[in-house]
Amino acid sequence: MSTIADDSFLWGNREMKVGEIRQDKATKKWVIYALARSKRPSDLQRRHEREWLPALDEHCPFCPGNENMLPSIIMELPGREPGRWQTRVVPNKFPALTPKGNPSRLSKGIYLAMPGYGRHEVIIESSLHNQDVAKMSADEVGIIIETYHKRYVDLIREKKHMMILIFRNHGLRAGTSLRHPHSQLIATGMVPQYIRWREEEAQRYFDEWGRCVYCDILAFEAKEQRRVILDNNSFLAFIPFAAEVPFEIWIMPRRHQADFGSISDKEKPDLGSTLQDVLVRLDKKLRDPDYNYIINTCARYRAGEPQLHWYLQIRPRLTTQAGFEIGSGISINPSIPEEDADFLNKDE
Amino acid sequence: MSTIADDSFLWGNREMKVGEIRQDKATKKWVIYALARSKRPSDLQRRHEREWLPALDEHCPFCPGNENMLPSIIMELPGREPGRWQTRVVPNKFPALTPKGNPSRLSKGIYLAMPGYGRHEVIIESSLHNQDVAKMSADEVGIIIETYHKRYVDLIREKKHMMILIFRNHGLRAGTSLRHPHSQLIATGMVPQYIRWREEEAQRYFDEWGRCVYCDILAFEAKEQRRVILDNNSFLAFIPFAAEVPFEIWIMPRRHQADFGSISDKEKPDLGSTLQDVLVRLDKKLRDPDYNYIINTCARYRAGEPQLHWYLQIRPRLTTQAGFEIGSGISINPSIPEEDADFLNKDE
Repeated sequence: MSTIADDSFLWGNREMKVGEIRQDKATKKWVIYALARSKRPSDLQRRHEREWLPALDEHCPFCPGNENMLPSIIMELPGREPGRWQTRVVPNKFPALTPKGNPSRLSKGIYLAMPGYGRHEVIIESSLHNQDVAKMSADEVGIIIETYHKRYVDLIREKKHMMILIFRNHGLRAGTSLRHPHSQLIATGMVPQYIRWREEEAQRYFDEWGRCVYCDILAFEAKEQRRVILDNNSFLAFIPFAAEVPFEIWIMPRRHQADFGSISDKEKPDLGSTLQDVLVRLDKKLRDPDYNYIINTCARYRAGEPQLHWYLQIRPRLTTQAGFEIGSGISINPSIPEEDADFLNKDE
Repeated sequence: MSTIADDSFLWGNREMKVGEIRQDKATKKWVIYALARSKRPSDLQRRHEREWLPALDEHCPFCPGNENMLPSIIMELPGREPGRWQTRVVPNKFPALTPKGNPSRLSKGIYLAMPGYGRHEVIIESSLHNQDVAKMSADEVGIIIETYHKRYVDLIREKKHMMILIFRNHGLRAGTSLRHPHSQLIATGMVPQYIRWREEEAQRYFDEWGRCVYCDILAFEAKEQRRVILDNNSFLAFIPFAAEVPFEIWIMPRRHQADFGSISDKEKPDLGSTLQDVLVRLDKKLRDPDYNYIINTCARYRAGEPQLHWYLQIRPRLTTQAGFEIGSGISINPSIPEEDADFLNKDE
């Protein structure tokens, strides 16, 4: 149990022991910050030792020399060593969705269903088995972003791809078991309800205020600086006001753009260096926490619309969702955004 | 990897290896059933041994004799032994929300926030430390339902309680660490976005069809019987067509009712016996899986509206949500609803 350092957290007096509930301005999701359940940032550090891994694992399908274990190779980008690949994109061997068929809807009794059409690719991030984004140079992370972008623009050309989600699962709690560093890309034939609803909330805000809600959040955070982790010409990295989990971080382009596909050649390496810097801090301060990151971008047919704004969202996996969170959609966050930002910003 | 026994799962031929995506009729959520990731129900059984627990634990705040460890006792209901309590309701010692203050909204810069007003109670389900719902008699589970209902109607009287969520976390993966059998209740001062959105989808359906979408689902499932686990005069227990997780089960009252508070005196013991039967099957077939269950009921000011229908939702915790699920809101379910139903229904 921590004492709350930031007075702005509380309206009442501390003796009342009333916590705070915050609303995410863009999505309208509420998040509970409960005093009786709050933890110090250092309580969330991982306790275990870092695992030793070899640079090359003969059983790993992503290691060089094991190409016979891969279904095929879609593309490669070279790294610093000329003639050798740094990133490699391959089809997922156990895909959630497959490119056969098409996303036509069919009735099943009173229900709606469709064939499992889609793309599911793996972005291998390094030829080294024991590499990790938090250990790479900023340039190397820039090459990963370049790879994401190439696959994104290539797949979004196909009209049946309604949504492309690029994400990274790091660690067992985040849902991965393969240790070789990799991200994933899934293209779907429909816009999921969750994304439709998020886009409708942004639409409502734009209709009322005539502004992109994410641009407003960006401007406010950049001015207040209370939750900012990194601030450069291209991106702002900050802990959102209503972070759903401890150390949730958004990396948002300063330039208004709905679609990840429209990231500029200048912004790609800048995203690489921003992401690298943020992940190094999480790795160092929380001792290699498990996390997911996701590039939240718009549905294909909304690219260019004025109310949407893509961003990269990092969600460390330090807490467990229980019945209340599942049933209400309200998160209980034991961590306070301002304290998390201070913890990541202070020198040790 | 399993072979798919039910041909109705596939449209194409099996050689094409195309999975299926299903939509929940009420919420419009999509769920992916991927052939390459599918598991046999028996692959999801827990491997570990059941833990031995004492009937009385001197360090447990919920055990009789340790009343000094409780903040207070809100109510008790007797069990079979006259003069002794079976259920006991107490305030949560580490509450997510506290009854001090009120749910008035306040501005924080451009954001909306509110004090952490609410109620957070624990329903102790037995005086025995080593008891569990899956080991109780149907009558004993009926007394738990009676306790839920008493607290629900008592708290919903207060106008500032906009939503009351009753839920149970069973096992470490489901978010509980206290072994003494218990459920929880949280009353909030606002309707969360997630519930508002679910209610709006049901409203849209009612506006179009003039019928409750849940009544339509109930009638279809009762007629088709393909995913039904239990069918009696008061309740239908079934695996939903678009189950988000393996062995998700909905227990739905046959009588149309928006509000859990309007459950009848006849329905309360029937819910107890249905819930007990379903949990015994899960316990036996999957070997005491971790799970959450939640009573999904309406926002307070929607009680009596024609488009809503409460139900109890059981979600076993057998899989991990990763970046794709978090970013898209689409679940990937390695289990097929029809196969799960068969597995729970077959005699061993």
